[in-house]
Amino acid sequence: MATKNILVVPGDGIGQEVTAVGKKVLDAIASKFGHTFNYDTALIGHVAIEATGNPLPDETLEKMKKSDAVLFGAVGHPKYDNDPTAKVRPEQGLLKMRKELGLYANLRPIKLFDELLGASSIKPEILKGADILFFRELTGDIYFGEKGRKNDGDTAFDIAEYSRFEVERIARKAFEAARTRRKKLCSVDKANVIETSRLWREVVQKVALEYPDVEVEHQFVDATAMLLIKDPRRFDVVVTANLFGDILTDEASQIAGSMGMLASASIGDGTGVYEPIHGSAHDITGKGVANPLASILSAALLLDISFGMQAESAAVINAVDQVLKAGYRTRDIADAQTPADKILGTDAIGAEVLK
Amino acid sequence: MATKNILVVPGDGIGQEVTAVGKKVLDAIASKFGHTFNYDTALIGHVAIEATGNPLPDETLEKMKKSDAVLFGAVGHPKYDNDPTAKVRPEQGLLKMRKELGLYANLRPIKLFDELLGASSIKPEILKGADILFFRELTGDIYFGEKGRKNDGDTAFDIAEYSRFEVERIARKAFEAARTRRKKLCSVDKANVIETSRLWREVVQKVALEYPDVEVEHQFVDATAMLLIKDPRRFDVVVTANLFGDILTDEASQIAGSMGMLASASIGDGTGVYEPIHGSAHDITGKGVANPLASILSAALLLDISFGMQAESAAVINAVDQVLKAGYRTRDIADAQTPADKILGTDAIGAEVLK
Ligand SMILES: CC(C)[C@H](C(=O)O)[C@@H](O)C(=O)O
Ligand SMILES: CC(C)[C@H](C(=O)O)[C@@H](O)C(=O)O
Repeated sequence: MATKNILVVPGDGIGQEVTAVGKKVLDAIASKFGHTFNYDTALIGHVAIEATGNPLPDETLEKMKKSDAVLFGAVGHPKYDNDPTAKVRPEQGLLKMRKELGLYANLRPIKLFDELLGASSIKPEILKGADILFFRELTGDIYFGEKGRKNDGDTAFDIAEYSRFEVERIARKAFEAARTRRKKLCSVDKANVIETSRLWREVVQKVALEYPDVEVEHQFVDATAMLLIKDPRRFDVVVTANLFGDILTDEASQIAGSMGMLASASIGDGTGVYEPIHGSAHDITGKGVANPLASILSAALLLDISFGMQAESAAVINAVDQVLKAGYRTRDIADAQTPADKILGTDAIGAEVLK
Repeated sequence: MATKNILVVPGDGIGQEVTAVGKKVLDAIASKFGHTFNYDTALIGHVAIEATGNPLPDETLEKMKKSDAVLFGAVGHPKYDNDPTAKVRPEQGLLKMRKELGLYANLRPIKLFDELLGASSIKPEILKGADILFFRELTGDIYFGEKGRKNDGDTAFDIAEYSRFEVERIARKAFEAARTRRKKLCSVDKANVIETSRLWREVVQKVALEYPDVEVEHQFVDATAMLLIKDPRRFDVVVTANLFGDILTDEASQIAGSMGMLASASIGDGTGVYEPIHGSAHDITGKGVANPLASILSAALLLDISFGMQAESAAVINAVDQVLKAGYRTRDIADAQTPADKILGTDAIGAEVLK
């Protein structure tokens, strides 16, 4: 019986709809297991810009730092995407949050629920049993280096940077996780071209010496992009830099049938942040069709990692599994065989999970 | 009846084996169509380092500049991959060649031969009819910017750079190609985070005004990595920066069943270079099992693009198609249904194409 303070930060687009369901699931867990979860909420992204002019208001950051965990939605808005000259952008809020909270490790588990074998565009016999845990570095790389224009605005530049320390701490997290799993680690870089990747490889090779029980493989990012589809079962833990991790984990979502199923945990030295890997999806916002399972599974990660509540976390995952076993689907994970009356909206499938 | 000078640059690993077959196919075309093709050969990559200490000897570069087209193999060697501190690397030869010859546009057509529908790990019903033409920018981005170490070697950095001019010329090539196809262009960037991507998007938006008949879409690279697998048929022409293009085209090779099937053309202001997208593959080098079809299809691109020989190019593609229709496969594109006696080695499948 614990008391915890959870900050819900829905952000933009479907972030609102899916975190509402994730929160209900946390509520249900609290009453079932006799915990007290207190909630607060705060703005980020486009909605924060509209309200305050700032994509990450100080108040939001303060609340995040003080809370025991953050249940996060998504940020982004098409308005900025089509205007490459915009100075203030929703994504700045997200990046600043990651930096300010020191969220250097983004964990993205890719695991297929057996019931969704048919929902992927990849053949079931290739997928069956695939189970990958990505560690994406989240506070370095080309995301946070100096960037700008020169030659009267005719040339744009971005600086990618990594220090030994930054690579070492994420590598160590990944090795520790590999130890608790199938003891295989694949480190992804582009060391044949990029200097930050050469440092990356050097450091991972060095850290590897401390984990002789873990089998290490170094892959070039182009090869990984190919092998994830060709043979997803060859991967156990994958560790990579910020930009490569962004690309590869979205790609790998297809292994799990849909982005709508994938949760992530961003952890570091302070408060952990838990969010779906899908974005704000303005094309389906407000229609009540968004898949809330990624937010629900983010809540499960939150319970497990930030609160150490393994039984509670397992109960959530099990509830999702039961709903899928009962044949319920949201639109994005339905296939030709799904009967129309089993295709549910955001709240309806959330209600099934709560049962 | 034309006379042309072709430089064969096999490079490393299976590059040797597959270009030998590609050259034979060019020979056969010359005698069938009454052309005279003169050949010369030159070193690049690891073999050039071993022989001269230089991954791109001046002699090779001179020969390239003087020839009418280059049939290229691959570069790379595991020795350097495992030593992130190596100062001289095979890949430097490749990158220098691209820069010195001004090969700014790398065309990678991804088209599935119907007979290979089963060879992909993606479901046939998702793949059928997929036909994508990638334009990867090849002489800019993080590949060619300043890179190095600072803080006593504790921090590594790489600078990504693009100028308006560089984006404009590749965008224009891609728009021109889209006009001759399904008139759809997808430009891929990460404009929500990266400044070079914002310049990229700005310039593509501007060039688009000159091509009102082409439908343009801008995608973030993480979304593209996902959508290529989820729904490959939505893409016609895709244009993107050097690094994103490297990752996405290798990923997209899975749409075509195997990397062993994919050819590429690198073009610019001078001599064009034609090469498989697969690498040196030292794990299978010398075993006689490498798939030479990508090199043969590179020869077809060479005939088409550098020599304007459309009938000759079509004859090569048709020969590959016939061999696949007859049921012959190399190991990498065979599936459970392929009878053992139809699985051929490098030379044997080459001989079938020559027939
Ligand atoms: C919204 C965007 C800045 C972000 C990223 O690139 O990190 C997103 O794609 C993600 O993966 O969380
Ligand atoms: C070998 C390597 C430098 C090269 C690249 O990254 O461009 C290769 O992957 C390619 O795609 O041609």
